[in-house]
Amino acid sequence: MGDPAGIGPETIVGSWEAPVLQANCRRVVIGRVAVLQRAVALLERPLSVQRVTQLSQVSPDPLVLPVWEVGAGEADQVQAGEVSAAAGRAARDALLAAIDLARSHDVDAIVTAPLNKASLQAAGVSQPGHTEMLAERCGAKNVAMMLYLPPGRGQVQGAIGLGVIHATLHTALRNVFTELSRERIVERCQLASEFAQRILAARGFSRQARIGVAALNPHGGENGLFGNEELELIAPAVQLAQAAGLPVSGPWPCDTLMHRAAAGEFDAVVAMYHDQGHIALKLLGLHDAVNVTLGLPIIRTSVAHGTAFDIAWKGRANPHSMIQATLTALELAATRDWQPRSPS
Amino acid sequence: MGDPAGIGPETIVGSWEAPVLQANCRRVVIGRVAVLQRAVALLERPLSVQRVTQLSQVSPDPLVLPVWEVGAGEADQVQAGEVSAAAGRAARDALLAAIDLARSHDVDAIVTAPLNKASLQAAGVSQPGHTEMLAERCGAKNVAMMLYLPPGRGQVQGAIGLGVIHATLHTALRNVFTELSRERIVERCQLASEFAQRILAARGFSRQARIGVAALNPHGGENGLFGNEELELIAPAVQLAQAAGLPVSGPWPCDTLMHRAAAGEFDAVVAMYHDQGHIALKLLGLHDAVNVTLGLPIIRTSVAHGTAFDIAWKGRANPHSMIQATLTALELAATRDWQPRSPS
Repeated sequence: MGDPAGIGPETIVGSWEAPVLQANCRRVVIGRVAVLQRAVALLERPLSVQRVTQLSQVSPDPLVLPVWEVGAGEADQVQAGEVSAAAGRAARDALLAAIDLARSHDVDAIVTAPLNKASLQAAGVSQPGHTEMLAERCGAKNVAMMLYLPPGRGQVQGAIGLGVIHATLHTALRNVFTELSRERIVERCQLASEFAQRILAARGFSRQARIGVAALNPHGGENGLFGNEELELIAPAVQLAQAAGLPVSGPWPCDTLMHRAAAGEFDAVVAMYHDQGHIALKLLGLHDAVNVTLGLPIIRTSVAHGTAFDIAWKGRANPHSMIQATLTALELAATRDWQPRSPS
Repeated sequence: MGDPAGIGPETIVGSWEAPVLQANCRRVVIGRVAVLQRAVALLERPLSVQRVTQLSQVSPDPLVLPVWEVGAGEADQVQAGEVSAAAGRAARDALLAAIDLARSHDVDAIVTAPLNKASLQAAGVSQPGHTEMLAERCGAKNVAMMLYLPPGRGQVQGAIGLGVIHATLHTALRNVFTELSRERIVERCQLASEFAQRILAARGFSRQARIGVAALNPHGGENGLFGNEELELIAPAVQLAQAAGLPVSGPWPCDTLMHRAAAGEFDAVVAMYHDQGHIALKLLGLHDAVNVTLGLPIIRTSVAHGTAFDIAWKGRANPHSMIQATLTALELAATRDWQPRSPS
């Protein structure tokens, strides 16, 4: 459900009747019955919200929206667009319950609506966001977020669209130089390769994935003229990844890499820092991007937008990213048993 | 003419017969007659190359390609796609002669074909490229390159397209932190504002320009969480620029800024470093971008590509950027006498 004060509940309700989802999966909302009822009323949808306590109760009726209720009643009346501990607790409780259902294989995948970091903090949650909570609950160490633009939408030409994973993400640009390491880059190459290979398999392609690794400096450093990180750090990491059998190449100057990737030359890109990847993917398809958490024992995708408190509960939220995120979860679930053909 | 071993001569010949250029300007090539003759033969164009020694000799005949010859005969036989001092000297001589013709008002603007930095260096030129040679020859201090995507092409929606100017450019990412200063950012705001206002005037718009200034850190630093440069450096610079009457705003997180700018919300963006601007503009229109040198007493535009030695003299070079660069020079020449309405 995400944060009940944000646009999560609206995007869930807005996405519910999408035919492509109705036809291909059963969904259950983990959250609060009353909150979803309010969202149904706001959007004037002909949906009936149904409390379920066993997953076998999830109805195939397209006009039923089943809710697995967690959390406390305090969440039902939070103010739209406002930070509160109650909203943070509700978002936390929904996420943890969803993780547990996925870990026990009761659900094949989880799709998360946005949460608000300030509300989470007010609720006393020590982790700053979804990814860290997922990693801790699952006991996973090498976890990273992939921003994924599925094919057929936005401006990407590649057969499986385009994924971007970051070697460093939510950190000051100044810290990138100390946070980057060969190990980190190789790990990201591994995660990106596995993801791309799974999506290729899900879509019936038998070819190897193609992963491009970005340079850090302009023009890829021009052989040390504009920085040494390519020579000393990124190129050796790419070689290590190649030696481990990963289908990676680089480092490539990031401006031309992104252009080539959008044209279909790469399935995924390993960016060195936040803006390299986000500038590209937001231009290529702001509303179509999906977040996928890689490195977890469960499948988890997420909308690529935030709680958007400024427009929350006004009926203006676009459910498109929620639909895309659910579709990507479906594709990954379809390859649940997929294994790399040449594990390294 | 640019470097005679690169794709410059081909792009000049390829652009020559473009009706929009034939109809709106007189052009003369500064370079070598024999080199242009070879390019005409390569592309099998019905053009007659004519040596001129006075600009009054420039023919209005659309099938005449006039050349103002400079440099030495050694340039006529340089090997395609190879670095050489002879090619570097030819490129230098052509550029310096063109600058002088513009400074003496014998031509309204200059458009440059690409040069090769290694050839330039082999020729003993101390400056690394066009911009530095232009700045020195013109005695200009506050000079910067704007990457400009004109409207109606690429993926930009704005009335005058989109320009991006960089506060730092060809330097290691690590050096950005020491090279950035309030003064530099304010200077770039000034240049970007003047440029956008001129293009607006040339196209008949009377409104004020809209310039967006990029943040350096992810999410614009999130109030210091991911870096302090926004609070301590960029926001104060934007305030200084605003106090000087410039139509700027920011700092904005660069990923959303570029998306908003592409959608037409800004006429130009001040990026903090190379990849911020280049990732965006290459995705939005790799082959349509034009370089404009701002801060010079003359008008100078340039193709946005390099010498492309790998495909030089094979008849495969795309003249599109040369056409765009010439059109932008024309627009700027049309506003030669334009003055800001409220100079600061």
